[in-house]
Amino acid sequence: MNSFIYDIPVRVYFGEGQIKHLGEEVSQYGRRVLLTYGGGSIKRIGLYDTVMEELQKAGMEVYELADIAPNPRIDSVRKGAQMCKEHHIDVLLAVGGGSTLDATKFMAAGACVDHDPWDFLNEKWAPIVKALPIVTVLTLSATGSEMDCGGVISNPETQDKIGRLAPPMLPKASFLDPTYTYSVSRYQTACGAADMISHILEVYFNMEQDLYMLDCFMEGMLKTIIKYTPIAMAEPDNYEARANLMWTSSWAINGFVNGGKQQAWSCHPIEHEISAIYDITHGLGLAIITPRWMEYCLDESTVSKYVQFAVNVFGVDATLPPMEIAREGIRHLSEFLFKTLGLQSTFQEVNIGREHFSTMARKACGGNILPGFKHLNQQDIEKIFEMCLN
Amino acid sequence: MNSFIYDIPVRVYFGEGQIKHLGEEVSQYGRRVLLTYGGGSIKRIGLYDTVMEELQKAGMEVYELADIAPNPRIDSVRKGAQMCKEHHIDVLLAVGGGSTLDATKFMAAGACVDHDPWDFLNEKWAPIVKALPIVTVLTLSATGSEMDCGGVISNPETQDKIGRLAPPMLPKASFLDPTYTYSVSRYQTACGAADMISHILEVYFNMEQDLYMLDCFMEGMLKTIIKYTPIAMAEPDNYEARANLMWTSSWAINGFVNGGKQQAWSCHPIEHEISAIYDITHGLGLAIITPRWMEYCLDESTVSKYVQFAVNVFGVDATLPPMEIAREGIRHLSEFLFKTLGLQSTFQEVNIGREHFSTMARKACGGNILPGFKHLNQQDIEKIFEMCLN
Repeated sequence: MNSFIYDIPVRVYFGEGQIKHLGEEVSQYGRRVLLTYGGGSIKRIGLYDTVMEELQKAGMEVYELADIAPNPRIDSVRKGAQMCKEHHIDVLLAVGGGSTLDATKFMAAGACVDHDPWDFLNEKWAPIVKALPIVTVLTLSATGSEMDCGGVISNPETQDKIGRLAPPMLPKASFLDPTYTYSVSRYQTACGAADMISHILEVYFNMEQDLYMLDCFMEGMLKTIIKYTPIAMAEPDNYEARANLMWTSSWAINGFVNGGKQQAWSCHPIEHEISAIYDITHGLGLAIITPRWMEYCLDESTVSKYVQFAVNVFGVDATLPPMEIAREGIRHLSEFLFKTLGLQSTFQEVNIGREHFSTMARKACGGNILPGFKHLNQQDIEKIFEMCLN
Repeated sequence: MNSFIYDIPVRVYFGEGQIKHLGEEVSQYGRRVLLTYGGGSIKRIGLYDTVMEELQKAGMEVYELADIAPNPRIDSVRKGAQMCKEHHIDVLLAVGGGSTLDATKFMAAGACVDHDPWDFLNEKWAPIVKALPIVTVLTLSATGSEMDCGGVISNPETQDKIGRLAPPMLPKASFLDPTYTYSVSRYQTACGAADMISHILEVYFNMEQDLYMLDCFMEGMLKTIIKYTPIAMAEPDNYEARANLMWTSSWAINGFVNGGKQQAWSCHPIEHEISAIYDITHGLGLAIITPRWMEYCLDESTVSKYVQFAVNVFGVDATLPPMEIAREGIRHLSEFLFKTLGLQSTFQEVNIGREHFSTMARKACGGNILPGFKHLNQQDIEKIFEMCLN
């Protein structure tokens, strides 16, 4: 069992109407704020007006950067970092989903250096030692960016999609008001759930010995997602469902359930290669890959973890033979993702063919080995892609 | 469902050997440290020497206050606050269990005011707006003081035992090394477990609607305690068991599982009146009271929560009639506390008679109503005491 340092000093304002604290929170970092957001949904739901009102009441000087795209691009980051420098920004306020938050984190870091922000992510891997303070207002439960210090940025020129964690990019505070997710579509709600499930399973499927307590927490989060996603899809303004999904999205990936586990992730790096090329919704890509990856990694040496998963999360009969329990667990998960949530289940359905399999697989393993629950080489990943085809 | 603010910026160094970070952590607050501890067990296990070595390596000037008693007294607090003022202390380092940590918190607050620290706890309820920085090294898994901003102090002169929460008293960092709990006796391990169970049940038994996710987490912690306490009692140096209990002790009471629940606690205020007079171990007092309190509060309006508890924590057959499931849950809990852990199960066994029942009950409800899962008046509490007798 490995040692670890737990350190997540994000202040979270959780619940309906907590936005009333926005002004006092943001203004403690200075007077000049860069407000970042995506495609305008925050205007449709009236959140933009509320945020502006709170900022004005607090006497903030507001600069704006809109149109941050899903799978956010390095161009937005460059623009935001530039604006921070030009306008002597004191604090960044990201209002949106994971894409807006992720991009804003790298803007905040980029504002503190002279080089191109892409150097944080390319082979230069420039150090991230400082970032302007970041506050977030979340409108989509999925990536957990509101309570972690990481982000993923795409570079369409190089067909790269690269993630990085750096403590200075941890938000100072995040506002989680479940009502801001009422307008999230059935489809995006489902994709968000798939993303959260994957965050948990990337940590849960691990043969390193770690704290049983954390396994219990992960099982609890999986049960929460399984219980409430269908409710949120059927009743978009069900507060209880949206609230449970929202708080789960943060805890699924803020580092707490990691404990001392060192093992690298598998499905995320694989999916990133797909969405670097195809611009598929991240959660959907994960939904398609995850059950196949589970199937591919199942053997006598790993079966015990699958048994725990199937019994504790889906209530599979613990008296069956282990391999049968394990397969039942995978079957239940697939049914949840593809029947209950109605997500597309194959590459074929989303128009992904074999053409880039070998490139994507090579990139995912860095031309060598993708370490994780089971270490995977290029051939392994290509086989998993084949399983996803239809 | 109520809103809430989540804000627990304690840095936790978890695992064997993490003490190597002690010097860098403590020295960032200044050079003059007040080291506080209890009856000398930290010398027996060699921890005292390790701590001194780390502090010296970091160039700290160390002042010491030893002999902080279980159910810590206001006298220790007064002495510590005085020492902080005299020696211009920059940071307090509490090494021990909950008693040492609790007392140290009020010393840190007392160091910043001119009045008697008891004024923080008596009817004056003096504001706590500042405290010197506190770092803790934990040697007993029970009270959760290492990750919360509260403490409980006794005043033998007035026979009062009073608790208070105040954000400035939150530790900056806590060192949780499970090996430091290897020497905790079977009996204290059991009492610590009973304390943790009570912390969880005080929040769990609640009819306010709150996040299902948090219920899952609480059930996970209860299962963790039930699984690992007997192991830690049988094999005191079982790292896995000690580690699970240690991290659970923090999360059982750091405020996270509260979510937006407003409901006050019941068993703790009742137990505090007992240990204010009898100096019984806090966890043991809670063990005796809790199942009786559960029994007393069970009725048609509350039974659903008992059913959830019995089924999810103890695997009681969910198809039985609800009242039967509820009673089975209480029976399982009693069996765990009094058979598996071997704790004394009645007041009689610990020499508590009826003589102070009415005084203790009156104090527990402040002469009026003790609000909680079920509101209890003096008579109710006396009835619960009667149930505890034998």
